[in-house]
Amino acid sequence: MILVQSHPAQLNGNKKTAFFLPHMDIKKYLNEKKEVVDSFFHLYFKDLQGPPILREAMAYSLFAGGKRMRPILAIASCEACGGDPEEIVPYASTLELIHTYSLIHDDLPSMDNDDLRRGKPTNHRVYGEAISILTGDALLTEAFRILANTAPGCKMDAASLLQAIQLIADASGCNGMVAGQVQDILSENIPADRETLDFIHMHKTAALIRASVKLGFILSGGDDDKDAALTSYGNNIGLAFQVTDDILDIKGETEHLGKKVGSDEKINKMTFPRLYGIEKSREIAEQLVSDAVASLGVFSTEADTLREIAMYLLNRRN
Amino acid sequence: MILVQSHPAQLNGNKKTAFFLPHMDIKKYLNEKKEVVDSFFHLYFKDLQGPPILREAMAYSLFAGGKRMRPILAIASCEACGGDPEEIVPYASTLELIHTYSLIHDDLPSMDNDDLRRGKPTNHRVYGEAISILTGDALLTEAFRILANTAPGCKMDAASLLQAIQLIADASGCNGMVAGQVQDILSENIPADRETLDFIHMHKTAALIRASVKLGFILSGGDDDKDAALTSYGNNIGLAFQVTDDILDIKGETEHLGKKVGSDEKINKMTFPRLYGIEKSREIAEQLVSDAVASLGVFSTEADTLREIAMYLLNRRN
Repeated sequence: MILVQSHPAQLNGNKKTAFFLPHMDIKKYLNEKKEVVDSFFHLYFKDLQGPPILREAMAYSLFAGGKRMRPILAIASCEACGGDPEEIVPYASTLELIHTYSLIHDDLPSMDNDDLRRGKPTNHRVYGEAISILTGDALLTEAFRILANTAPGCKMDAASLLQAIQLIADASGCNGMVAGQVQDILSENIPADRETLDFIHMHKTAALIRASVKLGFILSGGDDDKDAALTSYGNNIGLAFQVTDDILDIKGETEHLGKKVGSDEKINKMTFPRLYGIEKSREIAEQLVSDAVASLGVFSTEADTLREIAMYLLNRRN
Repeated sequence: MILVQSHPAQLNGNKKTAFFLPHMDIKKYLNEKKEVVDSFFHLYFKDLQGPPILREAMAYSLFAGGKRMRPILAIASCEACGGDPEEIVPYASTLELIHTYSLIHDDLPSMDNDDLRRGKPTNHRVYGEAISILTGDALLTEAFRILANTAPGCKMDAASLLQAIQLIADASGCNGMVAGQVQDILSENIPADRETLDFIHMHKTAALIRASVKLGFILSGGDDDKDAALTSYGNNIGLAFQVTDDILDIKGETEHLGKKVGSDEKINKMTFPRLYGIEKSREIAEQLVSDAVASLGVFSTEADTLREIAMYLLNRRN
């Protein structure tokens, strides 16, 4: 448990970039950026068309308490690469639309059959299965509509936006998140092995988190030497995020996690705690965060936020 | 029934553009273009990653006998606007991915609960509901990945591709197809009215068909004066397509339609035949096709294929 209380500098394997962040208040940063993303969504819903029940169901899950971690990672990555974070808010927000769609579909009776998500009834428990499936479909589609938006005032160049769409589609579809979810389902009730576990988590969770970090890089026109660093950072925190999620699922208190504790155990999901136990899983998550921070050695203080976020993800309680 | 046997020239309200198509063999054209689209899909599946069961489920529905009408409309529209049809095949093919995803989700137990589609067991009857939902999700996501592809050799400019992505996302999501499907579900077992019926069909079916026609226009760099003509053509044939589909659902023979005859009646779907009866619905479809052909008055013979396709859609048996 040593690393949990460590300062990010101690986590950084690259001695040359050891640093101190005496003034950084990561919770304040996360709250501020969450507000920015939420403001975009409020504006977005004002103009949204379609049947009221569909818009309501989309808003229900989108405003159900998500931390906006993926958009915030894109924004922090954009800042680290010297870009203007305000410019990328609409594009970064699409990551939350995709994340939300994936949760809605994952919760369905034919998938994880969850009744609660973030302490509230799941989308299909409120709107029924049919509307819920379509709500996910709409959120996914909207993500790409927003990503392709070059309305007057947009400062992004078209080639970068196409690259961003490719990146996000690649991370979300049959090469990424959907592949992980399929493998997750196929692996229920069979003995866990590390290779399958890595495949599931790298695709189901880490792919979109890595894409979030890379989105900030692409839309800020970051230097090529940052690409590999951010990819490694994204993969490591993505995997760490899932491992801590699985630990929380077993250890967490219902009021903190907002879903029934031990629900993954119930259907015998393949998880790190199931394969290694909680203590070893915790060590793995710490190592992954350490590796994530170490991979940012090519950056100076401009990536401090990304370093702090990695620490925060490890120590979160929900 | 007069219009059914008519030559397209007789359907065209614009006297100046009356035409004859003595050599046009529309079935040959449709078969040839279907081959072109299928060849693209075969190449595409060679490179596809992800769990084998997911790729198999995607291919199962994609090669289940679809006519590739939407990609072909995009190609024919591109030809009408003077574009190079070969260049747009990958982009046009994404319309079939989206159409196929929508069929897979529509057939689900919580939606139309269909056991047969084009004479074969529906996707969820073969792969189960969870994989089937994810297969639809993957097909939708892949459509945008392909649309954003600017691999070496791509002659499309980035701004046009972004415009195409916006067009297709708008036609598929909560402004288009998904909105229509939601309204379709909400309208089951309630009395039919024309306004609701038009909303359902314009969104659920016509939106993507209109987008198909517009895709060819956008990617061929068509003149602005063609835009309104093709929009009107697309809306009219889109609506006509759905009306004839609903007629076939009641009148068709199982072996031609490939799904259980009268399945819409079973769950009391809101359809034109239910509101107007078969004879009046047939007249409405004929008028829509007549209007579609009339709207192409701004084109000369270069739009003959689009005119023939409109006729073909009216007279099809499946």
